[in-house]
Amino acid sequence: MTRIFDDPAAFADEALAGFVAANRRYVARVDGGVVRATEMNPNQVALVIGGGSGHYPAFAGLVGQGLAAGSACGNMFASPAAAQIYRVAKAAHAGGGVLLSYGNYAGDVLHFGQAQDRLNAEGIRTRTVVVTDDTASASLAEIDKRRGIAGDLTVFKIAGAAADAGLDLAEVERLARKANLATRSLGVAFDGCTLPGATEPLFSVPAGQMSLGLGIHGEPGISDHDLPTASELAELLVGRLLAEEPAGAGHRVVPIVNGLGTVKYDELFLLFGKIETLLQQAGLEVVEPECGELVTSLDMSGLSLTLFWVDDELLSLWTAPADTPAFRRGNAVARPQRVIEESAHDDRTDTPPATIAAARLGSGAVTLLQAVQSVVVEHEQELGRLDAVAGDGDHGIGMRRGVDAAVQAANDASRDGAGVDQVLTAAGEAWAEKAGGTSGALWGAALCASGGALGNRESYGSADALGVAEAFSAAIIDLGKAELGDKTMVDALLPYVATFTAESQAEASVADVLTAAATAAVGAAADTAALSPRRGRARPLAERSIGHPDPGAVSFGLIAAGVARAYTDFTATDFTATDFTATDFTARSRAEDVTA
Amino acid sequence: MTRIFDDPAAFADEALAGFVAANRRYVARVDGGVVRATEMNPNQVALVIGGGSGHYPAFAGLVGQGLAAGSACGNMFASPAAAQIYRVAKAAHAGGGVLLSYGNYAGDVLHFGQAQDRLNAEGIRTRTVVVTDDTASASLAEIDKRRGIAGDLTVFKIAGAAADAGLDLAEVERLARKANLATRSLGVAFDGCTLPGATEPLFSVPAGQMSLGLGIHGEPGISDHDLPTASELAELLVGRLLAEEPAGAGHRVVPIVNGLGTVKYDELFLLFGKIETLLQQAGLEVVEPECGELVTSLDMSGLSLTLFWVDDELLSLWTAPADTPAFRRGNAVARPQRVIEESAHDDRTDTPPATIAAARLGSGAVTLLQAVQSVVVEHEQELGRLDAVAGDGDHGIGMRRGVDAAVQAANDASRDGAGVDQVLTAAGEAWAEKAGGTSGALWGAALCASGGALGNRESYGSADALGVAEAFSAAIIDLGKAELGDKTMVDALLPYVATFTAESQAEASVADVLTAAATAAVGAAADTAALSPRRGRARPLAERSIGHPDPGAVSFGLIAAGVARAYTDFTATDFTATDFTATDFTARSRAEDVTA
Repeated sequence: MTRIFDDPAAFADEALAGFVAANRRYVARVDGGVVRATEMNPNQVALVIGGGSGHYPAFAGLVGQGLAAGSACGNMFASPAAAQIYRVAKAAHAGGGVLLSYGNYAGDVLHFGQAQDRLNAEGIRTRTVVVTDDTASASLAEIDKRRGIAGDLTVFKIAGAAADAGLDLAEVERLARKANLATRSLGVAFDGCTLPGATEPLFSVPAGQMSLGLGIHGEPGISDHDLPTASELAELLVGRLLAEEPAGAGHRVVPIVNGLGTVKYDELFLLFGKIETLLQQAGLEVVEPECGELVTSLDMSGLSLTLFWVDDELLSLWTAPADTPAFRRGNAVARPQRVIEESAHDDRTDTPPATIAAARLGSGAVTLLQAVQSVVVEHEQELGRLDAVAGDGDHGIGMRRGVDAAVQAANDASRDGAGVDQVLTAAGEAWAEKAGGTSGALWGAALCASGGALGNRESYGSADALGVAEAFSAAIIDLGKAELGDKTMVDALLPYVATFTAESQAEASVADVLTAAATAAVGAAADTAALSPRRGRARPLAERSIGHPDPGAVSFGLIAAGVARAYTDFTATDFTATDFTATDFTARSRAEDVTA
Repeated sequence: MTRIFDDPAAFADEALAGFVAANRRYVARVDGGVVRATEMNPNQVALVIGGGSGHYPAFAGLVGQGLAAGSACGNMFASPAAAQIYRVAKAAHAGGGVLLSYGNYAGDVLHFGQAQDRLNAEGIRTRTVVVTDDTASASLAEIDKRRGIAGDLTVFKIAGAAADAGLDLAEVERLARKANLATRSLGVAFDGCTLPGATEPLFSVPAGQMSLGLGIHGEPGISDHDLPTASELAELLVGRLLAEEPAGAGHRVVPIVNGLGTVKYDELFLLFGKIETLLQQAGLEVVEPECGELVTSLDMSGLSLTLFWVDDELLSLWTAPADTPAFRRGNAVARPQRVIEESAHDDRTDTPPATIAAARLGSGAVTLLQAVQSVVVEHEQELGRLDAVAGDGDHGIGMRRGVDAAVQAANDASRDGAGVDQVLTAAGEAWAEKAGGTSGALWGAALCASGGALGNRESYGSADALGVAEAFSAAIIDLGKAELGDKTMVDALLPYVATFTAESQAEASVADVLTAAATAAVGAAADTAALSPRRGRARPLAERSIGHPDPGAVSFGLIAAGVARAYTDFTATDFTATDFTATDFTARSRAEDVTA
């Protein structure tokens, strides 16, 4: 149970502010996360890590001398947005380029990838090494699909030490990748965690049971077991990980016993003692272990074992001095505080102001976004539960955060006289930044693309509706790269666009087009229940997913239906024209008091 | 829920072994706890801390450079035994004397006090500073009755830094005492913690409620509140502590936000941010804060705020380098590993071997101890629940640990041919060492005294029974210093001895004497429900205690009744003589197969 907050929506932000206040000797706040408060070496590679909040000390607690130069901090269990990562990397950059490293979750991959592109485009050489230590999240043959859990620490530590030693970006990248390939983890869960403001845990494990293969977001495990003794648990974890010993791994291993939240220190130590004995019995030399809370998941009851096979090169970097809020090695020589130059906020090219008529239509766009918001609010809990079947359960809360931010930004823009494109672009950027995660990136990009397709014009015809649907769809497919049958939002989106196109070509009214397309999307979303996921959140737990529709497809279908309903209600009462014109629509939307 | 163990009875021991295995660069195991693994300065004062296990990083996690030289580690939530503290202090001692420091719990006071006497008697200069920061545990007027909670850290840190700086014992003691007087804490609980092997938490807080003034053993709070917002909680804690600002405290304050177990990092940081703001608004300068898990209570849901007002002298010691498994400050210069010379085990003067007849009676003493064990096993859960009404809930488990160890030791001694004194002394020493806590010390001392009264003779008469009762009682009263009406075991013990004496003088049979005395003890124990506690575990929560009998009095009454029953059953079936003679009794006890 997460209890300490004023407003659950502000939890991650206020927690980060408090973290910085308690650790000013280590870190400084920048827009989007934190950076080292102490001087870096000139031209040192900047290791920038990050991910969702709720995993302390990952990620902000690992920023400091000999480790990360900065951390981009997303909302609870949600990827930071590309713009956040970009700003943190700019502030952390010391002239030697940037290595991005994170846990290989779909949302992180999207956002860090976008940030990397932007940094490289600006001449800041940026590379990426994702952490893939969780052996339960994909087979060894598909190691690049595995997620990062407590193995984050080994990769970050090696990269941070290499950067501190003055190695160049290519070397730092090589060593981080080497560390990742030498790291294997496996976790267990005894009970779930509860997000701030939620009344139910993301998942729960029956009393007396243990779920094997948890992630760090409360993903359900891959198999359930009776609660073992500590000795049995040690044997299970060590046995499974030794069976995955990397080729040429050598005889020295660093064990890391990591508590996820409510499995406490004495329990972790007790287990560590048994694990060390088993490793020694297997002929391995145990070197420089760690036992504690290193990558947590709020108040989740669970733990993981990581084995990190080290040669001389990795061992010397693993034991090199580090000094951060939550992790240290050896005796670092203190570095002076530095002045943080926060990078400028995005300098967007100013678009010309919209005309009054265009601004009226911009206000109409706000009204439709509010219809989207109503749908998300109504279904937030249901979407979360659906996502928890085989995913991390954050789809409802993520969509809620995104749409709330989008409506707020749209309102602000509209009050300043923005046209449709300006309103939708403001909404899309806010959605991506505040929601984080994969769906945040996709919805954000799709709204921006929709705005681009419409422009800030003074009137729109029925052809524009099809143009929006196509632009929306293209943005999702370009960015997300999912295909029909992958069991994602795309499985509802493509039938939607197909129906939209057919009905438009048949010259149905916009209201009828929207309704028919939404009906197709809702039906297609329901049909995803039969599919086995091939990518995204549900892939590692394909079997559990079968029989349940994809949450992203469902939320798209619900929103499509809500938009069709809102448009139909509106046109049915106010006018019979099928065209979406400024005057009538805006008059109506003003009457409905467009305020957040 | 505490789940990771093989045998709950071995939990503390195995956890400590694992802790040492994971932290060999900091600590080494000695019999009774841990000591620093790195070299100390010659003639440096050795700060020896300790207490029950289950509070990590208190206490073993705070052993290392710039902090403690050793920690005596008791069983779960139970004081270490005097012999353990003595051995740890001997191993930690570097020639400059020993400062003992701990949290002012009754059991700790007893055992550390006994250890101090023994160390001083051997020429190792030893002083004590108890920590009394918990403002909820007694009024300011009775500050010496307050318990230590997270304020342990400030006192230990100041004393450790002073010792590291080469100050002598008197100065280290002065500074530790100064730190204690400048430290105030207040905690809250949202839910209880569960001891390994227990099925129910020690206490629970109703959902949506918060209990103010928890201890670190799951003691219930002093008042209940609706769950506040984070801002309201910060105001409550800061307001109450600022109202107790020490005289001449100055304007600089170190806030310490401490998590008890399952209130996680983001929540603690969020609260810290609000507390810092309130302190600044109160005109205070916030310096070198701490926010994290520093003194925990297994998986308890709760947190505390400590304020530590510092002048230049205290601040310079607070910020001095320290490097331990769980706490560090600044950048300590690494010290080489040292060779740990474990102190020799107690060299007891060998008593002459018992005769065969005396050994038979020794075996009879084992039988009576087994009767005591049966009573404790039967009532363990009930005693725990009763203790949890106004205490720390460990009375059942503590008695169980003690009696199990006592029977084991008694059996071992008896198999080696020990007489009654040897059996009871072995049992008493084992009880004190394994049970820990106040009741462990008292029962251990009382058994040893009983053995001393009886000697290793070949026969006993009815007068010996009265002698045992008197010796048992005298040991309890000498060591515990409780008086009639204080609501302790003594309230059952004194009526027991009075009735024992009267019935013996009336020449009743031993069986009748035991039965009458036990009846008096049981009745007197029940009558303690009306009393308000004046010392011991229940004093801070006097009001809750009224209406419930004292657990120590109840367990004594139950045991007295069990012993009377066992003796009566035995004599009724086997012989009619009231005297307790070797031949018959031993024949009977052999028949019952005296094995553990």
